Amino acid sequence: MPLVVTGTIGIDTVFTPTDRRERVLGGSAAYFAAAASFFTPVRVVAAVGGDWPKQHRDVLESFSGVCLAGLEERTSSRTFAWGGRYLEDVNCRETLFTEVGVVAENPPVVPAVYANSQFVFLGNTHPSVQHQFLSNFKERKLIVADTMNLWIETARPELEALIRDVDGLVLNDSEAAMLSGAKNAVTAANRILEMGPRFIIVKKGEHGAVLVSREGFAAVPAWPADEKHVVDPTGAGDSFAGGLMGHIATTGKTDIQTLRRAMQWGTVVASFTIERFGLEKLQEITRETLDLRMAEFRALTGANA
Amino acid sequence: MPLVVTGTIGIDTVFTPTDRRERVLGGSAAYFAAAASFFTPVRVVAAVGGDWPKQHRDVLESFSGVCLAGLEERTSSRTFAWGGRYLEDVNCRETLFTEVGVVAENPPVVPAVYANSQFVFLGNTHPSVQHQFLSNFKERKLIVADTMNLWIETARPELEALIRDVDGLVLNDSEAAMLSGAKNAVTAANRILEMGPRFIIVKKGEHGAVLVSREGFAAVPAWPADEKHVVDPTGAGDSFAGGLMGHIATTGKTDIQTLRRAMQWGTVVASFTIERFGLEKLQEITRETLDLRMAEFRALTGANA
Repeated sequence: MPLVVTGTIGIDTVFTPTDRRERVLGGSAAYFAAAASFFTPVRVVAAVGGDWPKQHRDVLESFSGVCLAGLEERTSSRTFAWGGRYLEDVNCRETLFTEVGVVAENPPVVPAVYANSQFVFLGNTHPSVQHQFLSNFKERKLIVADTMNLWIETARPELEALIRDVDGLVLNDSEAAMLSGAKNAVTAANRILEMGPRFIIVKKGEHGAVLVSREGFAAVPAWPADEKHVVDPTGAGDSFAGGLMGHIATTGKTDIQTLRRAMQWGTVVASFTIERFGLEKLQEITRETLDLRMAEFRALTGANA
Repeated sequence: MPLVVTGTIGIDTVFTPTDRRERVLGGSAAYFAAAASFFTPVRVVAAVGGDWPKQHRDVLESFSGVCLAGLEERTSSRTFAWGGRYLEDVNCRETLFTEVGVVAENPPVVPAVYANSQFVFLGNTHPSVQHQFLSNFKERKLIVADTMNLWIETARPELEALIRDVDGLVLNDSEAAMLSGAKNAVTAANRILEMGPRFIIVKKGEHGAVLVSREGFAAVPAWPADEKHVVDPTGAGDSFAGGLMGHIATTGKTDIQTLRRAMQWGTVVASFTIERFGLEKLQEITRETLDLRMAEFRALTGANA
């Protein structure tokens, strides 16, 4: 069933202790769409500037099933650009620069052909913008949103209004703690659940993810990656969300068993993303590669096939 | 098959932000034995002093299958005693006092009736003492040891000698990082694996546990406990080890599938330990209570029954 993502397409510059990539394709919508495309066609709503490299479009289009009808190219604007440096401990990164570009302008228009999208992922941006997007999807069956610390600090009323209107919220552990005031991920998720959604997923990076819902819990460990295989963690969370929503949209179901299985798929896709810079690894692999790792992941967690 | 644990029986005083218990039964061997007793008979090797309260023996004996033939009571000595305070964040605790007592004396003697023990857990103490215990168990089939930061810092050669001679090592994430020099739990475990054992289990508290072995990985998330259910985390790691080894000894098998299942049982038992002070919760529950939570835990991780 049709899946749509609203979010950012960016130009990323990433430094690690031993390597770097300059001005490569990045952004939440890019990682999400690439990850979800292994499961189902995915529609992108985003805006880029006149400086957006032709090769970045080629990369996105190399993922079969990614629809760019909702990608606005604004020739007189600049693409969102981000630069960051990972330290020896890849859990620590510093932002070198952020150029918001088109993200500070009017949000992109959702094309009429996307109106029948049933599964909607609202990638991180100002919660008022996320909220506006919702009105475009009258046939929505499941809305899941992401957010970030910036909006928790600067746009809390708007964020709370958004949270009341979505089915699921996906956020990382530090964001969950900031939003709820509770450090324990389960306590944090329980508190956020009181704000309206059906389920909350707290992403804990190398410690996996936990889902708290009115129907029950789900928990997945991370793929056990040795640090020598962790090249660039950028986009891991968006890849997780893409695998998650891709599986949900494929099944068309939103029950707790489907959500649990979807978290496993999100984990498996993200485990590949971090093995190379940017989208390099996801460009290399196929659905069969994911299936093989899923079998390994199920084995190591003792999970059902 | 016979399971034995060598370790500490202590008198614990525990403060939490809202409550306290003074001079209750504690120590690694007590938590381990109570947890393992739900699965299989368990033999205890430990020493206590003349100040050891009769009620503590009653508590231990209330767990059916705990054999205290190897518990030495030294009337002129003092029992190991520990006092600690948990802060609002239960992951942080401060030690108020440690009185080593009998632990500084000669280690307890392993009774002849324990000689046929096939499954051996060497609870945390000086690695030379742990090593000496090994010679008592000629029929050993699986030896697993625990350790702590103190020995990594002060008795590293002895610890490395022990690690070469055990099948498995169980330690927490900060200990694994200190021993290996790697912060990533999988990297740390891989490095420790090079030191000799067949498998390493890194306990990550609220983030679950990961096993790295020559035969493969295993990973379990923690039971998703809301902070309001976490009363006293003391003994969680020893309870995990008790459930782990209890299951292994019951099956008599040590293959990777059994180890994975054993980690689930360890997680389930530990999830009860932390719900009340000391051994209070484990005293209340039955094997059926564990079975019910195991069913829930398998469901939430999507694991096989």
